[in-house]
Amino acid sequence: MRQASIYDTTLRDGTQAEELHLTTEDKIRIAGKLDELGIHYIEGGWPGSNSTDKQFFKEIKNYALKNAVVSAFGSTHNAKTGPESDPNLKSIIDAQVEVATIFGKTWDFHVTSALRVPLPRNLELIGGSLAFLRKNVRELFFDAEHFFDGFKANPEYAIACLKAAREAGTDVLVLCDTNGGTLPTEIGEIIQKVQAALPGAALGIHTHNDCELAVANSIEAVRHGAVQVQGTMNGYGERCGNANLCSIIPSLELKLGVRCIGPENLKKLSGVSLYVAETANQRPFPRQPYVGGSAFAHKGGVHVSAVLKNPHTYEHIEPALVGNTNRVLLSDLAGRSNILFKAKQYGYDLDKDDPAVLDLLAELKRREAMGYEYSVAEASYEILFFRMMGWSKRYFQMLNYRVLDAVNDDKEPFSEATVMLQVRGEVAHTAATGHGPVNALDVALRRALEPSYPTLAQMRLLDFKVRVMSLASKDGNGTASYVRVLIESGDRHNRWTTVGVSHNIIEASWQALVDSINYKLFKDDPQKWPKPGGKHDSPLVHETKKA
Amino acid sequence: MRQASIYDTTLRDGTQAEELHLTTEDKIRIAGKLDELGIHYIEGGWPGSNSTDKQFFKEIKNYALKNAVVSAFGSTHNAKTGPESDPNLKSIIDAQVEVATIFGKTWDFHVTSALRVPLPRNLELIGGSLAFLRKNVRELFFDAEHFFDGFKANPEYAIACLKAAREAGTDVLVLCDTNGGTLPTEIGEIIQKVQAALPGAALGIHTHNDCELAVANSIEAVRHGAVQVQGTMNGYGERCGNANLCSIIPSLELKLGVRCIGPENLKKLSGVSLYVAETANQRPFPRQPYVGGSAFAHKGGVHVSAVLKNPHTYEHIEPALVGNTNRVLLSDLAGRSNILFKAKQYGYDLDKDDPAVLDLLAELKRREAMGYEYSVAEASYEILFFRMMGWSKRYFQMLNYRVLDAVNDDKEPFSEATVMLQVRGEVAHTAATGHGPVNALDVALRRALEPSYPTLAQMRLLDFKVRVMSLASKDGNGTASYVRVLIESGDRHNRWTTVGVSHNIIEASWQALVDSINYKLFKDDPQKWPKPGGKHDSPLVHETKKA
Repeated sequence: MRQASIYDTTLRDGTQAEELHLTTEDKIRIAGKLDELGIHYIEGGWPGSNSTDKQFFKEIKNYALKNAVVSAFGSTHNAKTGPESDPNLKSIIDAQVEVATIFGKTWDFHVTSALRVPLPRNLELIGGSLAFLRKNVRELFFDAEHFFDGFKANPEYAIACLKAAREAGTDVLVLCDTNGGTLPTEIGEIIQKVQAALPGAALGIHTHNDCELAVANSIEAVRHGAVQVQGTMNGYGERCGNANLCSIIPSLELKLGVRCIGPENLKKLSGVSLYVAETANQRPFPRQPYVGGSAFAHKGGVHVSAVLKNPHTYEHIEPALVGNTNRVLLSDLAGRSNILFKAKQYGYDLDKDDPAVLDLLAELKRREAMGYEYSVAEASYEILFFRMMGWSKRYFQMLNYRVLDAVNDDKEPFSEATVMLQVRGEVAHTAATGHGPVNALDVALRRALEPSYPTLAQMRLLDFKVRVMSLASKDGNGTASYVRVLIESGDRHNRWTTVGVSHNIIEASWQALVDSINYKLFKDDPQKWPKPGGKHDSPLVHETKKA
Repeated sequence: MRQASIYDTTLRDGTQAEELHLTTEDKIRIAGKLDELGIHYIEGGWPGSNSTDKQFFKEIKNYALKNAVVSAFGSTHNAKTGPESDPNLKSIIDAQVEVATIFGKTWDFHVTSALRVPLPRNLELIGGSLAFLRKNVRELFFDAEHFFDGFKANPEYAIACLKAAREAGTDVLVLCDTNGGTLPTEIGEIIQKVQAALPGAALGIHTHNDCELAVANSIEAVRHGAVQVQGTMNGYGERCGNANLCSIIPSLELKLGVRCIGPENLKKLSGVSLYVAETANQRPFPRQPYVGGSAFAHKGGVHVSAVLKNPHTYEHIEPALVGNTNRVLLSDLAGRSNILFKAKQYGYDLDKDDPAVLDLLAELKRREAMGYEYSVAEASYEILFFRMMGWSKRYFQMLNYRVLDAVNDDKEPFSEATVMLQVRGEVAHTAATGHGPVNALDVALRRALEPSYPTLAQMRLLDFKVRVMSLASKDGNGTASYVRVLIESGDRHNRWTTVGVSHNIIEASWQALVDSINYKLFKDDPQKWPKPGGKHDSPLVHETKKA
């Protein structure tokens, strides 16, 4: 079986993405996860360029990596000096890594217009830098910056750059599509010409996504014999990002029969993708191929009924192969089969003609007509499901709430909420101010509940979405429309989304807040109902239903 | 020059995306923008499946499209009936469109396991449905569902399906990679075999992005002769989405030399991409190729200094070709040139070094950093522009407002607003209830203003959109984030959109409401300033500036 090694540069090129910042501690944690995933090379950074990266190389030595080796990155030496006195190369040696990657110019236009040295001098910089490092590292890679643009402009010179690197003892010549403008057919043609000029050279590929072709270009390079693929988790990187390893790895393993991390590690991919996103404080992209939250989510009724018969009908791979799961979106586009699918996940094996199913279907249709959207608010759906199945426990009861928003004389707006609840037989009456009405309500609600339910302190509101549902009310006034609010919450272990709908944005937010808190309390409840593994026909269920 | 036509299915397949919903009104507006962009075919929906789509086909007839024709979508007829009595085909005819697209099964496994009819019967369904529609439409397309998977499983049968469609008079046979699992090399090989089996047939391509290869696959199909590309704006669609037209169109035009919308329309691409995202209430994806906010943003120090010397060093195309801008070198100048462009529309011929332009640029930058987004709120921009140019007239002045929202004992929520304004030297103090806080504020505001400005009675709020701008505040609480509100208003002649931003959703709504009313009063003002056609240096301007 053919093999390709994966070279991850999330910690270096990935951090060039807008609004993405990693601390040394973040980098250490991500490196640990990449190692677990079976990535071969982790580029830790550019030790000569900043202290975060320098610190990373120092600290990572305290960790015993099982699969990955750490690589340090740097440029060819300064044209005014020799390699021996270049601080950048020295810092790579000081980083005490097994692998070093040096990037150099291979596009004549860049050599003369950006680097501003004569073309032959650049060949010396490449060869000299790599030869200098050769004895200090176990493996040595050359990132041929702008190689494809360079080859198109001046093929002889681009090849001469690779030759200089090869003669200096470089192990892999990595062809870079730095500007991301190259088409897959060009990738294949140019690689064939490189192979003709440098028979037997080990080639790598490093692409950027400016044409939404970075994955295709990487695959095309491997098809033509590249033995190393450089990229980042979730495709993070400057401009449109780097080649997305979360798409390349499964396509190589599952579609091209090229072994890289192996089938067992592949099952960790969705988890690692999410871990990196969260650590980098990046909103996960739901439509992300293979690993995204929507990647195997089915909405259309035709699709849903076919997928229930056979997932292969609308799924190109089995989601479990990459650690993902398929999801049926609960919407009015689909129907009863969705309810049965979800019920099974909750431990209920229901019949499609069960009266409880018919009741739930009717209730769902009624609510969806009002604007509730359960496909994205599964926690609200789960609460509704258990209520319809007879779960009657109430953690608290609302008596009333009130929110006041005011602005005087162009001052900052002011929001104050009061909440009155019945909690465990007592009346809790609290007040709070906040950065807006929903925040004020949330704070007042927690003040009323946390004395009785201290685990609520672990819970955080993570995101808040508002949608106005219909354009115009009967009187033609847009602001009188229905408002749907989605709230995403999380604790240390989970994330969940709840929904509220009302004419009134405050009331819709309140409903979603209350559902979110109920969901947290339900999940934490030691007397949770039904008991884990409980079935629809368990005695407990019927007992509670009668209650 | 080779040509390919673009078939947009944002309004149909795009709405299968999770959390994406379009009202009929949204669809009409998006169709208008796609028409301006020069898209050839706009698939409006599935008139047989739901009332939103049916209504769309009814209403779009009131609009004269300049470039695009509207297409209706549907499946092959029910296997138990003939085409004549199929309600789905009838609804396509009732939609009175020039173009119809019928999808049918071409994968034997789907025919027997999902459709559950014998293989020959499916050929009759395809041929019969298309032949029945042939005389009712000008152009007829066949979406060959799962074609590539079907061809791999049973090439003879997949080809027989295409032949049945072709013999029924279909104009374009659209090969679909419905599950998105096909590789570019397979696309090319299979198309060549189809061309050998059906010489001269016009082929189209419809791909999904489950391997992050939809764009590469579409381009590969065009390279092999496909004459129609189906896709969606921003790649919206079920699971990982459809082929992203915002990436395909510029690559065809700029890289493959295939004409589709032409260079002038191409400059509108970034604007239309954003417009569709905002209308669909989808967060724009910053790293989106060609049109994304980060697509030409340079962060790395090496890149920035090279780009400042020559943008070509790290940019694969000139961003202006797709209506985007370079964020390092050109953001300032582009901002300024936009200001000059808009100013001209308002009757001002300004110089780029005019102090007023520099002031406005600084103010815009300050506000955009706060979350204001003027590209979709031109009415707010116009007000800001005239204020910066010295327009000092105030139709009213806010003294204070207050909104109370309350719910008691599970009753309906109750909203009451009071507003105190200075209007024409008098204090107007009004109160109103409403269906929610923004509606209550709007009613109270109108009560205070309509006695002085009776034309406000013609004005209606048409749409209201809310976006939470950042994930978490300092205390980790999502609801404390910044909120941006967009309000669309209209009267008998015009529609306009305004923006407000605050921690507090009520305050953000208030700002947008006030801008909207000011815009209406400004447009209706007989002493409007500057006078129509007035220039920056007209006496009126200077007089007013001095006042």
